[in-house]
Amino acid sequence: MPEIRRDPISGHCVILAADRHKRPNDFANKDSAITRKCPFCPGNEEATPPEICRIPQKDGFSKSGEWKIRVVPNKYPALDGDSQLIPQKNGIYERTPAPGRHEVIIETPLHSGRLENLPVAHIADIIRTYADRAKAMLSLPFIRYAMIFKNQGRTAGASLEHPHSQIAGIPIPPKRIMEEIKSCSEYKGRTGNCVFCDIIREEIKFGKRIICGNGQFIAFAPFASKTPFEINIMPTSHKSRFEEINGEEATALAEILRESLARLSKAVPDLCYNMMILTSPREDGTFPPDAYHWRIDIMPKLAQAAGFEWGTGFYINTLSPENAAEILRVS
Amino acid sequence: MPEIRRDPISGHCVILAADRHKRPNDFANKDSAITRKCPFCPGNEEATPPEICRIPQKDGFSKSGEWKIRVVPNKYPALDGDSQLIPQKNGIYERTPAPGRHEVIIETPLHSGRLENLPVAHIADIIRTYADRAKAMLSLPFIRYAMIFKNQGRTAGASLEHPHSQIAGIPIPPKRIMEEIKSCSEYKGRTGNCVFCDIIREEIKFGKRIICGNGQFIAFAPFASKTPFEINIMPTSHKSRFEEINGEEATALAEILRESLARLSKAVPDLCYNMMILTSPREDGTFPPDAYHWRIDIMPKLAQAAGFEWGTGFYINTLSPENAAEILRVS
Repeated sequence: MPEIRRDPISGHCVILAADRHKRPNDFANKDSAITRKCPFCPGNEEATPPEICRIPQKDGFSKSGEWKIRVVPNKYPALDGDSQLIPQKNGIYERTPAPGRHEVIIETPLHSGRLENLPVAHIADIIRTYADRAKAMLSLPFIRYAMIFKNQGRTAGASLEHPHSQIAGIPIPPKRIMEEIKSCSEYKGRTGNCVFCDIIREEIKFGKRIICGNGQFIAFAPFASKTPFEINIMPTSHKSRFEEINGEEATALAEILRESLARLSKAVPDLCYNMMILTSPREDGTFPPDAYHWRIDIMPKLAQAAGFEWGTGFYINTLSPENAAEILRVS
Repeated sequence: MPEIRRDPISGHCVILAADRHKRPNDFANKDSAITRKCPFCPGNEEATPPEICRIPQKDGFSKSGEWKIRVVPNKYPALDGDSQLIPQKNGIYERTPAPGRHEVIIETPLHSGRLENLPVAHIADIIRTYADRAKAMLSLPFIRYAMIFKNQGRTAGASLEHPHSQIAGIPIPPKRIMEEIKSCSEYKGRTGNCVFCDIIREEIKFGKRIICGNGQFIAFAPFASKTPFEINIMPTSHKSRFEEINGEEATALAEILRESLARLSKAVPDLCYNMMILTSPREDGTFPPDAYHWRIDIMPKLAQAAGFEWGTGFYINTLSPENAAEILRVS
């Protein structure tokens, strides 16, 4: 089983998952990727671990297989198993087995598709699938957070080309999210408002960083964008938990996500990116349950985080979000 | 002038430096790199901004030019200018011009060298140059931290091939370093000890993560290594500031740095990595001046930080530091 280790200085957590180096890589050797059957393509369903669920094709017939979306366990999980989280202290060092879940959402039967080219209704199905799997994971007593993410393209860390997202159920709330919740709570204490709701108001008033919106969701280039063309998508009304999204909201989100990614692809063809859904951890009494405001963060991979970024925690960005949003709005 | 923006939620800082996208890139187009003169090669000294200082070749004559090490301003600085740091608040957002310094240390006249192939005495000269430039930067009233780093290879973020390091004088102490100092102070409050000194004791006792050492410095794979083959090099006695290193210590450090990088190169040829010197910010009365213990962090670029890492702040590492150290010890 993978192991979680906590750094005694920074408190950051590392998951040691030795088996993950055995993952196949479509990009490392193009020839082997072509000759090897893609485990996510229709007809190769036996190449994945047993399926968790699927969304069938509505029309009941399709050349590319009978399913539209498939969810399977990750064959090389970063977290696995049902054990209790029992940190073992050894002097200054702390480690624990890494129980959890790690699943793959195969977004479409089409090997060479891209998320933004799917119909809105299909993307809404993917979003509902994310929410369903997150809820299922959070019902397990040892899972504290459901991290939904997508790595598009090799330089964004994808090992397989076939369009897919991932969801990891992890036993410790992420440091990043807990820091943001603390910051939200402090802001609320000072002002009485949610900082994200205030950001949305400010962005609508200013206008120059907005990419698109539809009343229920807004997409904009954040004020302190870490990379060129970073995009945040937020529900315009205060919602703490992504997984509580309803059907109508999923469709509204699918529209904005599709438009944001399509504009990004037009502005920078073949762009690699990381997409994350940042949401509230499971309630545990340590933070106000409605403190957070969930969002999607899309981080294009146009520059490498280098020594300066690693050393300082500062980011260097060569494109202002105002210019990025202008480029994306006309794309 | 570049601008610093602070994210209202996480508090992270972004430096918006639009001019840096004009940097040449040896790797983007191999042909243009060959036909274009390398600005760091002897004979092309006029291609860099006016030299800050140089270490001459001792023998007074060398085919590859008369200098051994050259320090020049970065032509595309992330930070620049002498202005005061005056944060401008605009609603929830805070921005400020980004005064500072950004210099390049050209490590050798040889275009295709690697740091670990230079003689120990030459590496010691580079280390002393780092320290001298850090001291010079920290003497400027608006500089709070001197970040010394090296990006080796394209995937580690380097844009030029010729061996070089960089030093950035920044007007705000890095969030990462301040968090580590806070953690050190808390640990000292609980135990009376420096956490880094305790780590060194623990590593020497355990032995299995040690790569090399010489009494004054120790190199080991950290317990919570974020990537395969991450290496930490620390002074074995408690020292808070790298820039106070003396001549004898610089030579001892050069030995260990050279051996660590040589073992890394043998284990993984053509490895790209980021190297950072993590040290104490300038004293300002907000933290105990001797709280920190400086170190070098070498982060090989074998995997991409992907959606999971960005979203959670957790790292997934597929090689345990115990295995990494064993591989490096026999390399």
